[in-house]
Amino acid sequence: MSAFPPEVEVAIARTREEVSQLHAELVRNGLVVWTGGNISGRVPGADAFVIKPSGVSYDDLSPENMIVCDLDGVIVANTPGSEREPSSDTAAHAYVYRNMPDVGGVVHTHSPYATAWAARGEAIPCVITAMADEFGGEIPVGPFAIIGDDSIGHGIVDTLTGHRSRAVLMQNHGPFTIGHSPRDAVKAAVMVEDAARTVQLARAGGQTIAIPQDAIDALFHRYQNDYGQDAQRSMA
Amino acid sequence: MSAFPPEVEVAIARTREEVSQLHAELVRNGLVVWTGGNISGRVPGADAFVIKPSGVSYDDLSPENMIVCDLDGVIVANTPGSEREPSSDTAAHAYVYRNMPDVGGVVHTHSPYATAWAARGEAIPCVITAMADEFGGEIPVGPFAIIGDDSIGHGIVDTLTGHRSRAVLMQNHGPFTIGHSPRDAVKAAVMVEDAARTVQLARAGGQTIAIPQDAIDALFHRYQNDYGQDAQRSMA
Amino acid sequence: MSAFPPEVEVAIARTREEVSQLHAELVRNGLVVWTGGNISGRVPGADAFVIKPSGVSYDDLSPENMIVCDLDGVIVANTPGSEREPSSDTAAHAYVYRNMPDVGGVVHTHSPYATAWAARGEAIPCVITAMADEFGGEIPVGPFAIIGDDSIGHGIVDTLTGHRSRAVLMQNHGPFTIGHSPRDAVKAAVMVEDAARTVQLARAGGQTIAIPQDAIDALFHRYQNDYGQDAQRSMA
Amino acid sequence: MSAFPPEVEVAIARTREEVSQLHAELVRNGLVVWTGGNISGRVPGADAFVIKPSGVSYDDLSPENMIVCDLDGVIVANTPGSEREPSSDTAAHAYVYRNMPDVGGVVHTHSPYATAWAARGEAIPCVITAMADEFGGEIPVGPFAIIGDDSIGHGIVDTLTGHRSRAVLMQNHGPFTIGHSPRDAVKAAVMVEDAARTVQLARAGGQTIAIPQDAIDALFHRYQNDYGQDAQRSMA
Repeated sequence: MSAFPPEVEVAIARTREEVSQLHAELVRNGLVVWTGGNISGRVPGADAFVIKPSGVSYDDLSPENMIVCDLDGVIVANTPGSEREPSSDTAAHAYVYRNMPDVGGVVHTHSPYATAWAARGEAIPCVITAMADEFGGEIPVGPFAIIGDDSIGHGIVDTLTGHRSRAVLMQNHGPFTIGHSPRDAVKAAVMVEDAARTVQLARAGGQTIAIPQDAIDALFHRYQNDYGQDAQRSMA
Repeated sequence: MSAFPPEVEVAIARTREEVSQLHAELVRNGLVVWTGGNISGRVPGADAFVIKPSGVSYDDLSPENMIVCDLDGVIVANTPGSEREPSSDTAAHAYVYRNMPDVGGVVHTHSPYATAWAARGEAIPCVITAMADEFGGEIPVGPFAIIGDDSIGHGIVDTLTGHRSRAVLMQNHGPFTIGHSPRDAVKAAVMVEDAARTVQLARAGGQTIAIPQDAIDALFHRYQNDYGQDAQRSMA
Repeated sequence: MSAFPPEVEVAIARTREEVSQLHAELVRNGLVVWTGGNISGRVPGADAFVIKPSGVSYDDLSPENMIVCDLDGVIVANTPGSEREPSSDTAAHAYVYRNMPDVGGVVHTHSPYATAWAARGEAIPCVITAMADEFGGEIPVGPFAIIGDDSIGHGIVDTLTGHRSRAVLMQNHGPFTIGHSPRDAVKAAVMVEDAARTVQLARAGGQTIAIPQDAIDALFHRYQNDYGQDAQRSMA
Repeated sequence: MSAFPPEVEVAIARTREEVSQLHAELVRNGLVVWTGGNISGRVPGADAFVIKPSGVSYDDLSPENMIVCDLDGVIVANTPGSEREPSSDTAAHAYVYRNMPDVGGVVHTHSPYATAWAARGEAIPCVITAMADEFGGEIPVGPFAIIGDDSIGHGIVDTLTGHRSRAVLMQNHGPFTIGHSPRDAVKAAVMVEDAARTVQLARAGGQTIAIPQDAIDALFHRYQNDYGQDAQRSMA
């Protein structure tokens, strides 16, 4: 079971470290309270991902208590942390990794503004250039689905497949984001809350101005190709 | 008076430590300002509870200045801190411990969004799954009651007895929460503010979508039984 | 000039220390940005007060750069800091000390929610018990007055004399608060923002419920006499 | 290329240090998330400015990785950081430096309240004295313009030339601010968000009261001339 080849063991150790540390960004950006929210990361070169344990305080997370699961969401036996329960959203993460091979990281939060849009079942319209840059248009809503089977994962994959957005607002629930790496998915979780907040504030004060579609396209294209120190790659 | 058996002295010392430290969570989660808010914890194996002193800065709280009271809210003489005044909400905490034997912790804050609902005398409707998980439905309002007799404690107990919610919004006043432990009551205080904020933001932007009752029931049942590293137990 | 008797020198040194340190509470409670806001404290036993210098970063405040003024707001020569400019609100502080002999501290901020009420010229209605406790009723509005003469000080004193509230919302400007000590005035500055925020949030979601006047009176009386470790004294 | 005279090398080193450190103020004041936002500073005595690299975490900024550009926005070869990509807003900063010789610093953020006004294409009305002090009246809106040519820089310069305000809300995008130094431009970025928030909160609760024009003029004149420890100078 845990008899991974040595190079996979190294990849698992790196992913544990990365996923554990990234949780601090959820706290720093005000996206989570108490033990809510979770991050996972695909292990490069293996049919496995690393995810947060369930109901553990953010202060107590460490690389060692992250949990390794296979792509069915089953804990890999005899690995550090395997005696614990993984995040209650593990099935949804697993479904995404099984069905979206380019996804390297998944994040879920109940960040307040994004969850407010989710409670209305309302997509966030693209009225700020930062949304055009990051999400290429509106941030869509996924179906109402409750924990217990594949329905959350199904809703995420159905909504985001072929969509520019790396974020989906699951109705009455909250945002799930994907990325080519765990860090990229965390960035999307930060940016979806920022967009949800800014657009709600904008609309609360009066009529917003739409951005023309060709400008949205130009902004998205430029940002995906020219921003930052390396070429960025869109998930879409 | 303070001639407790040694095992109770140990339990008191542990409860002082726990209650003192938990106050930092009220600050960290933005639930309190200045010296407002208070936490108490029942001493296991004794008819006593530990509570914050009145009007002391959060920076100056320590296990030693927590105050031990009996279940009538009377300070236990000759114990550390007994020369000081306990929280002005002590009578309400005592009433809860006398009348709800499963309660191990009580928290009171004036957290802004929850207090806003309280000022309207309006229950928070269950339109997000996190509320269904944590509170099993709406968060109810308790009566208007002023400090000075048992009316606050009475209002809390009447509202929460037999209710799934561990939080009550006392009208014009603010939230009181209960839990099987002080930490559990603090969690409820954090989650009630988070729910109050998210649902207010949701409604501010338009119509929210109700969650079907059977889905609320399923979410509550699962969360109370399967979430976290141990079986959780509902107060209700 | 600076030839104060030794006991006054000691009192000045203590007031410098206290006023300097209290500014950290304005930052911690989110009441100020950049170099905005100011605190002063009356020197016990002398016709003098200590106030923040103008336009200095909160990171750079120290007991030494606080400025000593007489009750006309004139800098006391040859004292530490006397080569610098005091807060541009010094004349208003001086006017309060000259005309309200029980006042030991004055605070001014542009905290966002309180300033929002000030921009509407609207008193904050007493719909939460914390306001009844702390301010004994509504928080009043003072006149529009601009810097340059005694008009701000005049407006503060006229509004607060004989009023239970230790806070006034100067129209289009922001809150000024008074207290029997600098710390007490800072507490009032924290509590006025908390009240301004909670009541605005309450009203944003619908109709608030008024608190009966006799309940307000009872809460105010109790809080002024019984809260905390010592007898509190109302300014009114 | 990098063969600057020694006194310019000293000025570049100082500007790198200042611009690098000032980015912490954007984080501290909640104006930016993730890698968004940027600050630049003109190098005194040279046709050059220093700007943040593109897409680098705020934790990783240092004087060494700031980038030196000429006034056409072209990276100066063989200087530290010159192998990296500068902020994607570099062309806009360069345009401002070329066309506004008194400007010593430029800041851009997507701070939430200011960006909300920008998404509505609505100028912030001057209903609080802090705005009169700092901006001398309303904060104007600039045109919709997308990255890729001089259109953003053009919009900033056209809007702010001859205007008292040091801040412009670029439509659907966010605030740009200018100052006589990088620190002064950062102050304007902090104050524009504070004004945007307070005025939006004010208006959300009802009708605001206008400040008479002569009072605005008096407040602006006084603040530009008398506030702080030195004479301030308006950009306008």
